[in-house]
Amino acid sequence: MPENKESKNQEDDENIVYVGKKGVMSYVLAVVTQFNNGAEEVYLKARGRAISRAVDSAEIVRNRFIPEAKIKDISISTEELGNDNDEGPSKVSAMEIALTK
Amino acid sequence: MPENKESKNQEDDENIVYVGKKGVMSYVLAVVTQFNNGAEEVYLKARGRAISRAVDSAEIVRNRFIPEAKIKDISISTEELGNDNDEGPSKVSAMEIALTK
Repeated sequence: MPENKESKNQEDDENIVYVGKKGVMSYVLAVVTQFNNGAEEVYLKARGRAISRAVDSAEIVRNRFIPEAKIKDISISTEELGNDNDEGPSKVSAMEIALTK
Repeated sequence: MPENKESKNQEDDENIVYVGKKGVMSYVLAVVTQFNNGAEEVYLKARGRAISRAVDSAEIVRNRFIPEAKIKDISISTEELGNDNDEGPSKVSAMEIALTK
């Protein structure tokens, strides 16, 4: 049973697409590939300015590539990025979009 | 009854904060003011790159000013911005965050 759980967690990790500074189509392609490989759910995660790119990616996946994809959940949070100045840890907004087929 | 509906709609409009290019604290202040004036629900709306600023605004309201505020709903969509080039209407991602006390 613990082995099953471990492999399940690993599988979940593979369904996460981290959105950064690349062009939006990189992330769209990553999501589409995950779905085509049989994923039931794909998570787009982004921080700071990349958040709007994550939204673009989700919308392009739905509107152009996988019309049956649905947005299951969107959550936002605040992450701390270590103590890199005198005012304490810098904080950055984060977002997670869960897409399902 | 139609009059009631109209005044309700007008009230709803007043609970919308459109997030644009100003500093994030402008929008935080607008949301906090709406809640302090008795609003039960405030909507943050943003398009394109302003989306990450809307997320920042919601997080700052919750973390620093109104701890009892909750994110009731987050939705994303695609809006068309008129036909300003040969490739048809430009599209932009949009986001709406509903905050409640």
